[in-house]
Amino acid sequence: MISAEPGHTQRRSAFGLTAARVEAFSDGVFAIAATLLILNVQTPKGNPDGQLGPALLRLWPEYAAYVASFATIGIMWLNHHALFSRVVRVDRSMIMLNLALLMTIAFLPFPTSVFGEHIRSGQDARAAALFYSVTALLIAIGFSGVYLYVATHPAVLRPGFVPEDFFRAVPGYTVGVVGYLACVVLSFVSPIAVVVVLAAIAVYYAFDRLPGPRSEDERSSR
Amino acid sequence: MISAEPGHTQRRSAFGLTAARVEAFSDGVFAIAATLLILNVQTPKGNPDGQLGPALLRLWPEYAAYVASFATIGIMWLNHHALFSRVVRVDRSMIMLNLALLMTIAFLPFPTSVFGEHIRSGQDARAAALFYSVTALLIAIGFSGVYLYVATHPAVLRPGFVPEDFFRAVPGYTVGVVGYLACVVLSFVSPIAVVVVLAAIAVYYAFDRLPGPRSEDERSSR
Amino acid sequence: MISAEPGHTQRRSAFGLTAARVEAFSDGVFAIAATLLILNVQTPKGNPDGQLGPALLRLWPEYAAYVASFATIGIMWLNHHALFSRVVRVDRSMIMLNLALLMTIAFLPFPTSVFGEHIRSGQDARAAALFYSVTALLIAIGFSGVYLYVATHPAVLRPGFVPEDFFRAVPGYTVGVVGYLACVVLSFVSPIAVVVVLAAIAVYYAFDRLPGPRSEDERSSR
Amino acid sequence: MISAEPGHTQRRSAFGLTAARVEAFSDGVFAIAATLLILNVQTPKGNPDGQLGPALLRLWPEYAAYVASFATIGIMWLNHHALFSRVVRVDRSMIMLNLALLMTIAFLPFPTSVFGEHIRSGQDARAAALFYSVTALLIAIGFSGVYLYVATHPAVLRPGFVPEDFFRAVPGYTVGVVGYLACVVLSFVSPIAVVVVLAAIAVYYAFDRLPGPRSEDERSSR
Repeated sequence: MISAEPGHTQRRSAFGLTAARVEAFSDGVFAIAATLLILNVQTPKGNPDGQLGPALLRLWPEYAAYVASFATIGIMWLNHHALFSRVVRVDRSMIMLNLALLMTIAFLPFPTSVFGEHIRSGQDARAAALFYSVTALLIAIGFSGVYLYVATHPAVLRPGFVPEDFFRAVPGYTVGVVGYLACVVLSFVSPIAVVVVLAAIAVYYAFDRLPGPRSEDERSSR
Repeated sequence: MISAEPGHTQRRSAFGLTAARVEAFSDGVFAIAATLLILNVQTPKGNPDGQLGPALLRLWPEYAAYVASFATIGIMWLNHHALFSRVVRVDRSMIMLNLALLMTIAFLPFPTSVFGEHIRSGQDARAAALFYSVTALLIAIGFSGVYLYVATHPAVLRPGFVPEDFFRAVPGYTVGVVGYLACVVLSFVSPIAVVVVLAAIAVYYAFDRLPGPRSEDERSSR
Repeated sequence: MISAEPGHTQRRSAFGLTAARVEAFSDGVFAIAATLLILNVQTPKGNPDGQLGPALLRLWPEYAAYVASFATIGIMWLNHHALFSRVVRVDRSMIMLNLALLMTIAFLPFPTSVFGEHIRSGQDARAAALFYSVTALLIAIGFSGVYLYVATHPAVLRPGFVPEDFFRAVPGYTVGVVGYLACVVLSFVSPIAVVVVLAAIAVYYAFDRLPGPRSEDERSSR
Repeated sequence: MISAEPGHTQRRSAFGLTAARVEAFSDGVFAIAATLLILNVQTPKGNPDGQLGPALLRLWPEYAAYVASFATIGIMWLNHHALFSRVVRVDRSMIMLNLALLMTIAFLPFPTSVFGEHIRSGQDARAAALFYSVTALLIAIGFSGVYLYVATHPAVLRPGFVPEDFFRAVPGYTVGVVGYLACVVLSFVSPIAVVVVLAAIAVYYAFDRLPGPRSEDERSSR
């Protein structure tokens, strides 16, 4: 890691990989993945005239899947941004973890499309819910990986933030892994219950789960 | 809201969510949504040789829909940018409202494609116009939501801007909601009239509807 | 225009629309349009085993169209960037002209796909060449519009640049309009000749056609 | 090249093409190409109910191809970023080389899709592996082109970096060309062996192969 050689770090920081750049690239992936979601919503071609209205209404599960995944990606972008705003320096290992996370996020349009298409069918709704839940679980694991890396590498933290606070916030931040794991199990029982839990997790993460910076006083009294 | 605790705000502002970042993410969604529009324009495959010219000409409604939606997204981007250039600080609530707005904008390629495909058919033209109008209405409501949030939260405003001016500009800024509501009603009568009103609204918003900053004198005499 | 009220301009420049922002949005459209080109290249599904190699080779016109359009968009991006690097301030009119330009550029993937698909067929090759040429002509007109706006509005120019130099460079910069007009005519005669002229225009614009800044001495002696 | 006229360079650097801008555009292409990969993963339509699970499982080669290409693009983005972080100035020639490189990277989604679709078929797996390997080879050649340009043009290097170090790192940096050439040959023998070598090359480039900056002492003792 860069921080192992302080002198080297100083020089590197003049030209090296910056959190801002990594965040900009990540923002691109988030924005594109969210905007691509609409490409999966399509009307059946070749309907007789006068059938467009009902055909558009029948697409409601696809609209719901669009809203759910757009909101999920949006909230994940917000939390990704909030996490990186606490980071002042990145290294190759952290970038690799971040790329693994982005890989799972950019995959989401596919299970979204599958879920929207099959949520009304009998058995396939379960397979679709399972597929979506597994993807969401992988995303949550990816987020936890980046978070734990930040928590265990004080050198990447912006001044004012301390690892202790990040450790204390681990349960609150990584509870999504448990939530999505519950979705995986629920998929075999009730796809509708999966949708409810997914929405609850999204609402949970709409609020900030990250530690704030310490004041000067708190830091000096450590 | 962040401004509730001034000291906390100061510290947060050193690492927190910035208007610039949110705007960059939004720019990405605008740019992608506008550029994806062309993916919906396609020639029918398997025409006999010599039929390409007429086939390309028959696509004129799709070109018109492309131009209309690209111009609409472009003008919305401009106004989004103008609004955020008056903002100096963002918080989670405002970001959530902005994500909801982006969700409606990123949806636009789908009704654009439906409108372009069905504008020449009998009954379906009405359903397509209705679908497009409802989407535009949701976008206008989304814009009004972000605008009203800015107007009612002076702490997010850049120095020199005052909420009073934003309140006074509410009718001029949110009249699009009324306009698109008219489009929804008109859809049941005449799809062509909808196109005319949509174009008129776009021209209206091509001009700046936002309050400018106050001069030092105006501010000191308040 | 903003420069009409100097005092107002000063205040606006603190929050207003910046060239950097417009350029960032434009860069997004350029990058997306270029990267979407590959989506139009597809193998026919359902070939018998062992036919993939020949099928991939038969796609050579699609590869050629991809290379041609990617190079064209890349060079246009470079020239757009070079033009905006001479601009220090933007206003609504210039942004509108720029949006019109971007609208024509984001359209290019469609005629590219049509050209790649039909260049080997008899009559349709001409229609495809004509369609591509008309699009390229509209792009050149769009570029000329932004360029002429810059040349006629000294207030948007970065210090060191003078309108006279931009006027003198008009023929060299806008000759693309004539070139693409020639392509439109040539389309009725020979699609292959169109490809040659398109490549020649791309090479021409690979070199800088914009005036450089004047030195201090040149400026003081005006 | 710009550095030929020092005085001109100074003036140009105030308005000219910057490495940051070129990198931002490149980042866009990388992010879009990586995120578009998922569009090629699709379930067959019209399966009978209850067949979704097995259908999703049968797509494993497409998932593998997605992971491989996303990782490859991600690592290439990282190395592109690392290379440009050593660059302080760009010129038209370097931008052209970079555009050629981006052209090959933006092409990758197509061979990825072909590889994922055909890796299980008999003869076609070889054609698909060959197609992917040739594309990867072109990307490696593109990277080598940009690298050699940087190594032979000291004026583009950030202070602290010396061409000698770049020359010495040529073998380590361009060995990918040899590796992908081996893949081209291996394609005729074993598509699985190609996958293994591709993964090995990706792991190799996950580590930094670029020279670091020299310290003040090293520079003064030259």
